[in-house]
Amino acid sequence: MSINTQSFIPPKRTLMGPGPSDVDPRILQALSLPTIGHLDPLFVELMDNTKQLLQFAFQTKNALTMPISAPGSAGMEAVFVNLVEPGDKVIVCQNGVFGGRMQQNVQRCGGRAIMVQDDWGTATDLNKLEQALKEHPDAKALAFVHAETSTGVRSDAQAICALAKQYECLTIVDAVTSLGGIELAVDEWQIDAIYSGTQKCLSCVPGLSPVSFSDTAIKVIKNRQTPVQSWFLDMDLVMGYWGQGTKRAYHHTAPVNSIYALHEALLILHKEGLQTAWDRHAAMHQTLRSGLEDLGLEFVVKEQDRLPQLNMVRIPDGIDDALVRSRLLNEFDLEIGAGLGVLAGKVWRIGLMGYGANQRNVEYCVSALSQVLSS
Amino acid sequence: MSINTQSFIPPKRTLMGPGPSDVDPRILQALSLPTIGHLDPLFVELMDNTKQLLQFAFQTKNALTMPISAPGSAGMEAVFVNLVEPGDKVIVCQNGVFGGRMQQNVQRCGGRAIMVQDDWGTATDLNKLEQALKEHPDAKALAFVHAETSTGVRSDAQAICALAKQYECLTIVDAVTSLGGIELAVDEWQIDAIYSGTQKCLSCVPGLSPVSFSDTAIKVIKNRQTPVQSWFLDMDLVMGYWGQGTKRAYHHTAPVNSIYALHEALLILHKEGLQTAWDRHAAMHQTLRSGLEDLGLEFVVKEQDRLPQLNMVRIPDGIDDALVRSRLLNEFDLEIGAGLGVLAGKVWRIGLMGYGANQRNVEYCVSALSQVLSS
Repeated sequence: MSINTQSFIPPKRTLMGPGPSDVDPRILQALSLPTIGHLDPLFVELMDNTKQLLQFAFQTKNALTMPISAPGSAGMEAVFVNLVEPGDKVIVCQNGVFGGRMQQNVQRCGGRAIMVQDDWGTATDLNKLEQALKEHPDAKALAFVHAETSTGVRSDAQAICALAKQYECLTIVDAVTSLGGIELAVDEWQIDAIYSGTQKCLSCVPGLSPVSFSDTAIKVIKNRQTPVQSWFLDMDLVMGYWGQGTKRAYHHTAPVNSIYALHEALLILHKEGLQTAWDRHAAMHQTLRSGLEDLGLEFVVKEQDRLPQLNMVRIPDGIDDALVRSRLLNEFDLEIGAGLGVLAGKVWRIGLMGYGANQRNVEYCVSALSQVLSS
Repeated sequence: MSINTQSFIPPKRTLMGPGPSDVDPRILQALSLPTIGHLDPLFVELMDNTKQLLQFAFQTKNALTMPISAPGSAGMEAVFVNLVEPGDKVIVCQNGVFGGRMQQNVQRCGGRAIMVQDDWGTATDLNKLEQALKEHPDAKALAFVHAETSTGVRSDAQAICALAKQYECLTIVDAVTSLGGIELAVDEWQIDAIYSGTQKCLSCVPGLSPVSFSDTAIKVIKNRQTPVQSWFLDMDLVMGYWGQGTKRAYHHTAPVNSIYALHEALLILHKEGLQTAWDRHAAMHQTLRSGLEDLGLEFVVKEQDRLPQLNMVRIPDGIDDALVRSRLLNEFDLEIGAGLGVLAGKVWRIGLMGYGANQRNVEYCVSALSQVLSS
């Protein structure tokens, strides 16, 4: 097969799927600044500033707060491989795709996953969860997804963590889609380990996974009986590179330019303020909701459990899912998301994340959908 | 501690350490193009083109050739977690830092690493290696570093692989610093699994790890008795996303912009041609060598084993290692590398990689070192 030797020039899409979301041009600009060394004193300073900004975004004082040099899935794995040892029991709440991935992670660490299942499209049920906590008093940790990207559901992270703490469980939270889009308070909610992604409500390019570990979690890591099965994700080693002070132990080559971009994304969030960002997501969601309902589209998730940043609507009967999405993409350069797993072909997922949660995107999306659905 | 809210504007360094190397501005430009979705048909096409270009760079027809969405250390881990199962014996050649990291990887997979040690700064000894192969006829694989980044040594990859194949071992090659800088022929040399990095002789930003697996390696993966311990790096899952055809199973969100950059970097290499790129590295190395020897600096590695792209010289007696490097950085915006491990404080490592292997860099480096060493 002959090689295509053309440079790739992407079209300017409007990204309103489940992520990546629209990236702020300021962030793309930061991404393309000249690369410097990953041990350069100026880069070490940038790492420190990035950590501080992540602490702000997560609302935590956790010293071990930093971006993993790989996507959110690796952030998830970093949390599980460090906290779970063979034989450990972990209660995992599943109400969509990502709870299932947590189960996989627990099992691949040699742990036992106790599953608490809720229907896709509903929030984690606190009663079921308490039942599981009672039945498994020896569970080491409880893991759940704050904002389920596969369904657009918000679970009550604060209440779930409070319950887990009553039963002396470590709390593990997937905040890939929640960070920057809805309220999240790591210290106040007693979260022990959390991971997120850069390409959702931070509006940064995909590729990094911010994580944070509480002092309790660090103690658990330090007291492990077995080595962490991943060398790349071993937090004890990673800490030596991302730790305090100017002396950093080389671990791996940090993705320097991606850190430039994340730093800029966090500066933008800091300038806006967390509450203002959350309010903006909520307001844009309301505008989008009106527009979609005017088109006759119905939301699947109960009102109180909806994520403003990820809107899941039922595909009307007789409508060809793939055709609509491909027309939106080809005629409007607009990407919306398909359903995943049991919801494939049944729903669309419309993202309003970070920089993309704006009036222009909302109106463009409603207008484009209106045209495609009526012709 | 108050947060620094300034945007980060890096200086324009000349990067002549062990990596990251100078990034071609064309690649930074590609990096900053608008993000599109990781399931966008145009992105899927870009993935296919990137695979083809990687096959060209690795000189292989291997269908499973793609970039891991994380740095070279994760590429190394991807190779080991997929090929090594608990109880497996792997012969590991160590003549620097990265052989030691391979050992760690084998052990964390529950395997047994049989170490073949050579002094740091020397190449892997074929006689020792054959001895180990004879003593361990049940070894499943043999792993070695083609271009040792910690010492600037090239081992004879072709001969090592030929020997391993005589003893029916899988061959695992670290090509982080070799790809694009010196001859490398995956199919001809019978390499079963190989990983590299983007930030060395490809002159791309750090963050991705190109890998390639032979059909033999794929058979081994398909016939595993135990699940791969990493979900993120499980090639069976990754293949579903990077595989053939237009239907791709969502695995993780690809680092879209980094793939733009890698694609552009590979186009540049393809345009230049592999042989021309290797010749350029060799020629620039000879010019640098003359310049450094004129300054009285001595190479540590025997001439025949030297990597053109990574030049390790002894620090003259009475010279303050850290002071020289910091003066080069602060007065000349020039980064060279320190020694690692047993060589810390004793050597400098001067990189001539990819875009950075040019006359301007060579002369600038010699001139800057000359000024700093004489004042």
